[in-house]
Amino acid sequence: MDPKAFQDYYPDDVNHCYGCGGLNEQGHQIKSYWDGEETIAHFIPRSYHTASPGYVYGGLIASLIACHSTGTAAAAVYRAEGRSMDSNPALRYVTASLKVDYLRPTPLGITLEVRGRVKEIKGRKVVVETTVTAGGKVCARGEVVAVQMPEQMKSS
Amino acid sequence: MDPKAFQDYYPDDVNHCYGCGGLNEQGHQIKSYWDGEETIAHFIPRSYHTASPGYVYGGLIASLIACHSTGTAAAAVYRAEGRSMDSNPALRYVTASLKVDYLRPTPLGITLEVRGRVKEIKGRKVVVETTVTAGGKVCARGEVVAVQMPEQMKSS
Repeated sequence: MDPKAFQDYYPDDVNHCYGCGGLNEQGHQIKSYWDGEETIAHFIPRSYHTASPGYVYGGLIASLIACHSTGTAAAAVYRAEGRSMDSNPALRYVTASLKVDYLRPTPLGITLEVRGRVKEIKGRKVVVETTVTAGGKVCARGEVVAVQMPEQMKSS
Repeated sequence: MDPKAFQDYYPDDVNHCYGCGGLNEQGHQIKSYWDGEETIAHFIPRSYHTASPGYVYGGLIASLIACHSTGTAAAAVYRAEGRSMDSNPALRYVTASLKVDYLRPTPLGITLEVRGRVKEIKGRKVVVETTVTAGGKVCARGEVVAVQMPEQMKSS
């Protein structure tokens, strides 16, 4: 298994996302990897990431789903094109649309498993289905339409 | 206009949400108000809430939409029932599902306007449409299905 996460391959100029950018010191810095045909990330919310005491707030769950899915989109397209993640042109996806169903309250204080599956690669769009699981139970299920980052969002 | 925000009426035991809880010192503490038939909140993202430099990350936008919408749901049901927000039983909604379309990159460094509109109140569900606008342009459009907070999420 590649010890580097998908996000570790993001070029520096597009590596500042609060959710997943390795250069965002205040951010979540989530790390996503292949797990067979699926992708996986683990995340431990902070004690203050509460919805109500003992449960994770939904905005964080949405953020994990979005960032894991855009990372998955990039990785999937590299794989589909048969090239490594350090080859050029670099791929960097953002969320065009996000849908999350919150199936049950997500307990705080344990490691969350974020698992993605590519549903479709279609032109510039990649559709990714991502779940968030805690203690063996799926707590949230998301679908992300990821698109390549617009040029205006890339700093020079 | 009521000078108190919707969230100021949340009972203490359900006022710890990272997005909107007045008792969450590390959180965003968004404040939502009526603006005629619509609801409004303003929020200035921190400098590190980046997607890429100069733009707001999508997870924060999702969080603003979710929390403003659940606050709107509570306020709308109080209003529909013809009672004040400090009357009992207290209403507290959470996000059952969230859909966000990111229409354009959201610029960082200016005040965002979050505006909600109740689409439907149906039994225990309230459907709220919420937009996020920056500099006069709608940057994201969301729809939230809000439901009353499950009993298990209320601390005693």
